[in-house]
Amino acid sequence: MEFTIKQVADLLGGELSGDGTAKVKKLAKIQDAEPGSIAFLSNPKYENFIYTTRGSAVIVNKEFIAKGPISASLIVVEDAYSSFTQLLEQYFNLKNFSKIGVENPSFIGDNSTTGDKIYRGAFSYIGNNCKIGDNVKIYPQVYIGDNVKIGDNTILYSGVKVYADCVIGSHCTMHSGVVIGSDGFGFAPQKDGSYKTIPQVGNVIIEDHVDIGANTVIDCATMDSTIIRQGVKLDNLIQIAHNVELGKNTVIAAQTGVSGSTKIGENCIIAGQVGIVGHLEIANKTTVGAQAGVGKNITEEGVVLLGSPGFERKQYLKSYAVFKNLPELRERLKELEENYTNFTISKEDK
Amino acid sequence: MEFTIKQVADLLGGELSGDGTAKVKKLAKIQDAEPGSIAFLSNPKYENFIYTTRGSAVIVNKEFIAKGPISASLIVVEDAYSSFTQLLEQYFNLKNFSKIGVENPSFIGDNSTTGDKIYRGAFSYIGNNCKIGDNVKIYPQVYIGDNVKIGDNTILYSGVKVYADCVIGSHCTMHSGVVIGSDGFGFAPQKDGSYKTIPQVGNVIIEDHVDIGANTVIDCATMDSTIIRQGVKLDNLIQIAHNVELGKNTVIAAQTGVSGSTKIGENCIIAGQVGIVGHLEIANKTTVGAQAGVGKNITEEGVVLLGSPGFERKQYLKSYAVFKNLPELRERLKELEENYTNFTISKEDK
Amino acid sequence: MEFTIKQVADLLGGELSGDGTAKVKKLAKIQDAEPGSIAFLSNPKYENFIYTTRGSAVIVNKEFIAKGPISASLIVVEDAYSSFTQLLEQYFNLKNFSKIGVENPSFIGDNSTTGDKIYRGAFSYIGNNCKIGDNVKIYPQVYIGDNVKIGDNTILYSGVKVYADCVIGSHCTMHSGVVIGSDGFGFAPQKDGSYKTIPQVGNVIIEDHVDIGANTVIDCATMDSTIIRQGVKLDNLIQIAHNVELGKNTVIAAQTGVSGSTKIGENCIIAGQVGIVGHLEIANKTTVGAQAGVGKNITEEGVVLLGSPGFERKQYLKSYAVFKNLPELRERLKELEENYTNFTISKEDK
Repeated sequence: MEFTIKQVADLLGGELSGDGTAKVKKLAKIQDAEPGSIAFLSNPKYENFIYTTRGSAVIVNKEFIAKGPISASLIVVEDAYSSFTQLLEQYFNLKNFSKIGVENPSFIGDNSTTGDKIYRGAFSYIGNNCKIGDNVKIYPQVYIGDNVKIGDNTILYSGVKVYADCVIGSHCTMHSGVVIGSDGFGFAPQKDGSYKTIPQVGNVIIEDHVDIGANTVIDCATMDSTIIRQGVKLDNLIQIAHNVELGKNTVIAAQTGVSGSTKIGENCIIAGQVGIVGHLEIANKTTVGAQAGVGKNITEEGVVLLGSPGFERKQYLKSYAVFKNLPELRERLKELEENYTNFTISKEDK
Repeated sequence: MEFTIKQVADLLGGELSGDGTAKVKKLAKIQDAEPGSIAFLSNPKYENFIYTTRGSAVIVNKEFIAKGPISASLIVVEDAYSSFTQLLEQYFNLKNFSKIGVENPSFIGDNSTTGDKIYRGAFSYIGNNCKIGDNVKIYPQVYIGDNVKIGDNTILYSGVKVYADCVIGSHCTMHSGVVIGSDGFGFAPQKDGSYKTIPQVGNVIIEDHVDIGANTVIDCATMDSTIIRQGVKLDNLIQIAHNVELGKNTVIAAQTGVSGSTKIGENCIIAGQVGIVGHLEIANKTTVGAQAGVGKNITEEGVVLLGSPGFERKQYLKSYAVFKNLPELRERLKELEENYTNFTISKEDK
Repeated sequence: MEFTIKQVADLLGGELSGDGTAKVKKLAKIQDAEPGSIAFLSNPKYENFIYTTRGSAVIVNKEFIAKGPISASLIVVEDAYSSFTQLLEQYFNLKNFSKIGVENPSFIGDNSTTGDKIYRGAFSYIGNNCKIGDNVKIYPQVYIGDNVKIGDNTILYSGVKVYADCVIGSHCTMHSGVVIGSDGFGFAPQKDGSYKTIPQVGNVIIEDHVDIGANTVIDCATMDSTIIRQGVKLDNLIQIAHNVELGKNTVIAAQTGVSGSTKIGENCIIAGQVGIVGHLEIANKTTVGAQAGVGKNITEEGVVLLGSPGFERKQYLKSYAVFKNLPELRERLKELEENYTNFTISKEDK
């Protein structure tokens, strides 16, 4: 996507100073900007860069007064930072939400409906009895099983798989390789040492404004629903097991796993590669550090955990500091033992 | 899928008490059941719920005698628990195994054959010289490379990828995003610091009754076969490297990784996020706790490991309990050192 | 793929001894070879196997003199090991690079070009304004977004997803389920406890000779580029976050995660299940052991880390050895405390 600097200035309601005909096609930080890029200057700390930038245009606050020659065109606005953010969002929407219509071949089953401004990419599949909202973007090779409901303004990137009976809210984003509704991992041990698969017949319910990163998996519940509450943000390659519930606005970083039936509260922050065992309750506003293991209920809000099994973060770091010096500690103990023995013997020898 | 309560009663050979015309479309626990759901009561501990349940029908044992009014219809059977399980399985099969036929467009190469009751979903791909058994369900966007064999009653959900030359048994389940037969990770270091890829020309053999969770990856062997024995159950996002062998009825939880050429015995239980290094032999009935690392052979059956590197679980937990108090331990040692020094000095001063 | 032994001998410029008409279709180690397999003998340590092998043919050095009867046909060459390696590579190329042409249906957008010897599998998707090089193999169900560039001789196995604007070099391999260019995980906390998604408008640049394992994810940069330098080898299920840079010839094993904006140097070796936090700089030739956590900059070359948080490997193993005996250590301390107290009391009693 290319625009003239003049077009960008008009879009932002800004005043143009310099050449408006050059084209920009990229947004960049002022210190990294190259020809064809547009940057912004808001924090005075970065002012020096404006005199040397190779970027084609810089958005500046109207208070800005140049202290030297600037090769870039300037777009003068009320608030450079928020104008740039506005540009970022528009660029993002243009890139991801502008596709409209149905590419062929694509598949839609019986009794399924789609809303206005739908995009159904080539080789995408919608099963029977689905209800897909307005402005939903279904990229190529997406699979949507039977009886699925999807709210408005949700985007499913290429290759997302949604099993039958799942429900997805509005304003959700699912990245490539996301799997929603695969079978929970449940097996009944048999006398001969083999396992019998426990049929998983529940679904997954994802509320509004949920973002899910690439290749993350959310299993369906055994009978009722695995539930992802409003505003949850999940990174890539995360495992959410059957019957889990993630509370509102909880954020989880990459490669973390939450085991079956655990309920995580609201506004929790779970770092990457964390493991949480099954059937737990985790209080609101819990923070878990990277690679930690959570093995028991957290009943108090605001706890910060580290370690595996995890305990209070500061305490963990203190214990870990001693751990790093354990060989020395052992030597000191040994020495003390020897001295003590020698000393008591020599005393008693007297 | 909707049935009348009468239809369900007939299916189970049960006796109906109450309205048979209402429709049920969901199975639920008695404590969670809502209108349209069917539940069961077997354990007397849950009897109270039957008088308050909002579910439409409850399956009960013929010995059950109501102690109060019940709004749900009752289906009276010999064994409520096993009738409910039977219903679960039928529901599951209806949901997952009832698709039959070929959706268009789909692709099948030369000399490939498929059995009776096949389902080949739209945009699924079968290469050349494949042999696909009876009642195999190939969901949309599945990829099956050349020369692949798949046994009867196996189900490949949307987006499963099977590389050329792999062999999959009967009664297997592969969830979305599973990759079978990708190249093993083998590189020969060169003098200039770069790596040369070692060609991987082996395959993966998966025996019968194996379940594989979403986005799990099993690499092909360098020359012969990576082997997954009968009855193995793998959760989501697991890594099985080249030339690994997993013994019969071994179960592995999510996000665990098994490195190249390791042989894991039968009936092992490996928890989530475990890492197992390469070229090991792990005895039958080994248990490995979550997030543990296995760095050496396990030669004795029945060992339970925890920690990274892992050692005997109880011992690990004891060590870890001391670890949590290491700062205090250090203080005690320091105090002892100081007292001892003062004491010996004062004694020697005499 | 089947060849007669004579055909293989001719291909290698070797001399045939024995039956040349039997067919071989597999490469194997001499100790594992079965009928239909071809093996090699180079290391005299394995000579015994040649007298018992069930393989159809064995490649041997011209210096080899049989000490007994051999049932396999022999192919006599200058250097058996390098002839076998040559065969491996040819077999691999035949298996993976021999597909040419366009299978139907497949999709290609406006203004996109592809080079010579292209393979575009069925249900593969190429967006608008893409530039795809010579001999590129695009397997079925691959997705390539708008404006993507791919160099020569690169192979994208079934189901790879490349988001818009990404750049991939020559001689690269991407296995099934790889996702390139999904959104970085960036959210701005709002006053009401919710998070606002920060638009991610950058891309991913992958240089030449990069191999990426199945279901690995590389996020796009927030504004500029996530960069994977020449010769990098990534295993399966790895997470590379936004704005990361991986230096030349760095190798990373399965299930490792690198957080946002971290720069890893050249020729590093990162084992499996490692976690590396964001905004770090890791020096060239750093080695990180399995399951370690890297929490601070590594400024010196050649460091080997272990533990979480990680520190020097040998030191970690020493500390860990003491950790395993912590309960005993605590007992010894306790005993010393008791003895000391008793002793000083008894002394002072005098």
